[in-house]
Amino acid sequence: MPRWEPDARERLVAAALRLFSEQGYDTTTVAEIAEQAGLTKSTFFRYFPDKREVLAAGQETLSRLFAEGISAASADASPLAAVAAGLERAARAMTPFNRELGLRVHAIIATSAELQERDALKQVGMAAAMADALRSRGVPDLVAILAAELGVLAFKEGFAAWVATNNQQELSELVLAALDRLRATVTELD
Amino acid sequence: MPRWEPDARERLVAAALRLFSEQGYDTTTVAEIAEQAGLTKSTFFRYFPDKREVLAAGQETLSRLFAEGISAASADASPLAAVAAGLERAARAMTPFNRELGLRVHAIIATSAELQERDALKQVGMAAAMADALRSRGVPDLVAILAAELGVLAFKEGFAAWVATNNQQELSELVLAALDRLRATVTELD
Repeated sequence: MPRWEPDARERLVAAALRLFSEQGYDTTTVAEIAEQAGLTKSTFFRYFPDKREVLAAGQETLSRLFAEGISAASADASPLAAVAAGLERAARAMTPFNRELGLRVHAIIATSAELQERDALKQVGMAAAMADALRSRGVPDLVAILAAELGVLAFKEGFAAWVATNNQQELSELVLAALDRLRATVTELD
Repeated sequence: MPRWEPDARERLVAAALRLFSEQGYDTTTVAEIAEQAGLTKSTFFRYFPDKREVLAAGQETLSRLFAEGISAASADASPLAAVAAGLERAARAMTPFNRELGLRVHAIIATSAELQERDALKQVGMAAAMADALRSRGVPDLVAILAAELGVLAFKEGFAAWVATNNQQELSELVLAALDRLRATVTELD
């Protein structure tokens, strides 16, 4: 009978990151990740379907937080104000562990086409979650899609600034500032 | 020595579509696709790395046409006007074969998570190609990314309308109309 492993998910993510950095993503196996984390392969598979998913682990959580924040925004909030509420909810939930992770994940993703695909899909999935939450508020389809795209771009920009060395600002400030910049670029399209 | 096969690519795409529709995407093999097309497996692999790529076959062509149209737009064209030029260039290159294909591809993609992933990546790739072409014109990064997202959404919308039954409008008209609608939604964000 498997005993309960405290922080098994975090240990697996940390172990995968270490191995991907040291010996490369392609050559690292699930067995090695589990061993490095002091866990079994079957514990690994209770948390992740494959090694590709380890680095996208936060996607469902982020999508849920975005959607919750958007749904909780006041009824008269504009689509972009609702997106801002979703971004803020997600940003405030991020911990120093997420920051440390973000820094290293970025470097590893750059080494693997497979991980770049996974990362692109992660963004598509998060945009879909935001657009769904906006449509549930009665936002028209195209407006919802566009606002969601802006939201994902803002989170990506803000997160990249946050993990950059020596940045002392809060993630939520950085993300909302990025959303403001994106909103401003809209006037430069035409 | 392999002899030259006229229209081998189109025959492979048509054969794959037929088999994916009839017996499902997951169970269809490359060998079956090649046989159905009256070609060999090695001919298949001269055109596509795997069966997933068969349905994304037009991506590079579309990306190239978008980029060419954007580059050829007059120097004083706004970012969105340059995107419109890219969309028009690509739309005018689409043939009745592409339309027939589009209709059937859409139905098959709906049956497979793997193909939905591929389709999402195709859109990411096309947006990246448009954004690169815009940056080469000196468009600032965020404006380029946003204009490219609008361009891909417009092409997707317009293409979906085009392949819908009984639509007699030109693809280029439909795509440019979709871009206009997207441009208008920008004012509804706030």
